[in-house]
Amino acid sequence: MEERKIILRELMKQSPADIAEILVDLSQNQATDLIHRLFLRNAAAEPLGEMDPDDSAELVVQLDRKEASEILSRMDPDDAADLLFELSDDIQQELLSRLSRSDAKVLSDLLAYPPDSAGGLMSPEVVPLSLTMTVQDAIHHLRSRVKDAETVYYAYAVDDENRLLGVLSLRDMALADPSRSLRDLVIRDAISVPVDADAEDVAHIFDKYNYFALPVVNSENKLLGVITFDDVIDVIREEATEDIYGLAGVPSEEGVDTTWAQSLKLRLPWLYVRLLTALAAAAVVGLFEVAIAKVAALAVLMGIIAGQGGSAGMQTVTIITRGMALGELDRSLGWRLLGKETLLGVANGVLIGATVGVITYLWKGQILMGIAVFLAMALNMIIAGACGVAIPLFVRKLGKDPALVSGIFLTTVTDMLGFGLMFAIAIWLLPEI
Amino acid sequence: MEERKIILRELMKQSPADIAEILVDLSQNQATDLIHRLFLRNAAAEPLGEMDPDDSAELVVQLDRKEASEILSRMDPDDAADLLFELSDDIQQELLSRLSRSDAKVLSDLLAYPPDSAGGLMSPEVVPLSLTMTVQDAIHHLRSRVKDAETVYYAYAVDDENRLLGVLSLRDMALADPSRSLRDLVIRDAISVPVDADAEDVAHIFDKYNYFALPVVNSENKLLGVITFDDVIDVIREEATEDIYGLAGVPSEEGVDTTWAQSLKLRLPWLYVRLLTALAAAAVVGLFEVAIAKVAALAVLMGIIAGQGGSAGMQTVTIITRGMALGELDRSLGWRLLGKETLLGVANGVLIGATVGVITYLWKGQILMGIAVFLAMALNMIIAGACGVAIPLFVRKLGKDPALVSGIFLTTVTDMLGFGLMFAIAIWLLPEI
Repeated sequence: MEERKIILRELMKQSPADIAEILVDLSQNQATDLIHRLFLRNAAAEPLGEMDPDDSAELVVQLDRKEASEILSRMDPDDAADLLFELSDDIQQELLSRLSRSDAKVLSDLLAYPPDSAGGLMSPEVVPLSLTMTVQDAIHHLRSRVKDAETVYYAYAVDDENRLLGVLSLRDMALADPSRSLRDLVIRDAISVPVDADAEDVAHIFDKYNYFALPVVNSENKLLGVITFDDVIDVIREEATEDIYGLAGVPSEEGVDTTWAQSLKLRLPWLYVRLLTALAAAAVVGLFEVAIAKVAALAVLMGIIAGQGGSAGMQTVTIITRGMALGELDRSLGWRLLGKETLLGVANGVLIGATVGVITYLWKGQILMGIAVFLAMALNMIIAGACGVAIPLFVRKLGKDPALVSGIFLTTVTDMLGFGLMFAIAIWLLPEI
Repeated sequence: MEERKIILRELMKQSPADIAEILVDLSQNQATDLIHRLFLRNAAAEPLGEMDPDDSAELVVQLDRKEASEILSRMDPDDAADLLFELSDDIQQELLSRLSRSDAKVLSDLLAYPPDSAGGLMSPEVVPLSLTMTVQDAIHHLRSRVKDAETVYYAYAVDDENRLLGVLSLRDMALADPSRSLRDLVIRDAISVPVDADAEDVAHIFDKYNYFALPVVNSENKLLGVITFDDVIDVIREEATEDIYGLAGVPSEEGVDTTWAQSLKLRLPWLYVRLLTALAAAAVVGLFEVAIAKVAALAVLMGIIAGQGGSAGMQTVTIITRGMALGELDRSLGWRLLGKETLLGVANGVLIGATVGVITYLWKGQILMGIAVFLAMALNMIIAGACGVAIPLFVRKLGKDPALVSGIFLTTVTDMLGFGLMFAIAIWLLPEI
């Protein structure tokens, strides 16, 4: 018993982020027990705020509802809303009903924003300043409200109706003469984010301007909250994971901690989609069973032609979709890249095609078979290059995420064409079929 | 002429990040001309600092050397060092020789750190404070040095030998009683980054603790500089791009702005590696030419078996390598995942195998061929699941980046096994071969 207290005391010296990491590694019972003990010492809210919301939600549902709602009221509202978002509607309602009316209002307002929008990322804890203040007034005011603010490194000036007028940096205020008016220090054409902006667009703005906090406004330019860089780092990581997963056909919900039954449910549908496309490619091969029976070497070669087309095309798809995710690809560049990648397809196709053509000739001693392989490979790689640009552009035009579906379309094209071209050209050129 | 001046004046009202974006979109001649005009108005350094170093380096080499060195001396040293890093050794030396001795020393010290280390990310512009100061002294000191500091939102307390003692936040200082001693405000067990730390590890520390600046120290704990979150956002994006590219066999140097000749040179080697593995797989098929000539349907089916194994295995490789990149995968979890993914392989393999087996039976009316396809598919998918974990773990153990090479090893295994298993089982089961 005594020993446990010592461990707990040592633990509480750690930063909330470290305690959060420990909580994730414990079994659910141990973690719930630890949260309960931290709660009794008024130290449960911060570590829960540092955890992934799906992990913290799992813990909070294990707690007594009264305890859970008290912890929620002590968390930063943006973290608390993210946690609530992961819970079922009735647990959400039950916990909200136990909060003070003002806390409940703040959280249900936040829950109304989509999690991947600026509203879903922002913290409402921002201390607005009036331009009638002096620097000294402002610092005095910030000092009295410091507990309510997500960040005070920037403060935001508003008019009587809470409309955003400009930004004040704490740096400028701290280093200025205390008697100066805020009017002298305010930066008026400040960048702000509309509350319905897409999270990825918010990330691009942070990336470009290197601000570490940006104000969020509604359509009437009223100040609603603030987004800080740490929220954006999470968005950037998640966006990258989604793209990586999309290209490999992994559902974005997966991670190393997903149970095997969940993984099966998540991945199997994509494997069946992939199977459908493989069957379509096999159907193309099936059309040429007679040719295969006569020249079995064609079956040996067709996989190389389809595979190389797929590999080259996926290089293109990857560069195009990554460029799109990084916001580097506008319409005019799209057309230019179509030309570039088709040209690359010609160069790659001629070089790889010639290599495989020569190998085929050396293997079978038939010059015509070598030529057929060369032609099929070159054509497939040229089309792969063009499709590697055209497919993501087309998918984006449809309003879908190009990283998610472009790969499977591309390999379907390169497989079917790889097989079809090989056999069609062989039948045309080879006398024995 | 008059019109040009108006455009320039309007342009200079934009933020440096916006001007940087315009510079990237201009032709090289136009951009060089614009930089020259900005230089004459003392406004060239900031936009260049906002550009990718490879882009800004391309512009700077076009300038008169005297002009270039003056611009360098006005840039933030970390940006200037990144730019210099992209230049050839003799241009580097020529530009450094034109700088003041102290500027040249700062830049050549920075150039000595690898760009993907904490030293390569940091800015040396940090204003150290002594704990003997009061808050008022400190703010006064910071005010006089504000131009020299990368960030003054955090200040760092050092002893007489420049050893890091702790962190002071400008927030705490601005909001505290001006007569208090810094001793009362300093956070002593501050997190710092060793100068030789890997950039990706630095990113993980920022990610975990949500600091927006961290001090960098050498092995004697002496304060060398500071890293801010915006440097880390770039690291996170680049790390993600590298992983995405690695899985698709795209060299990390590529982007949407690479010329086609460069792209050819960069991508062709990987296509030849891929061709080698395809030839190895084709050699397996070649062993069974006789069987193919007898039962051409096998050639139709073998691609499906190899392809589904590859797809399922790549799902696993992607999840494992992404988990590694995010620092979520330790040794014990690795072993657990090997079990999980093998089990998933059994489940996926039985389900997909049964589907394809039934389709084969319906197509050819031969129950034995259906069973052969089922067995080959199930076995290939089980092995794909196990290899999808084992290959990245093994590659990491060798000290290589798992995202770069795991995919090609995996598909080589699933292709060769897919073909080999299909034919071996068919020969064993089917009476007509």
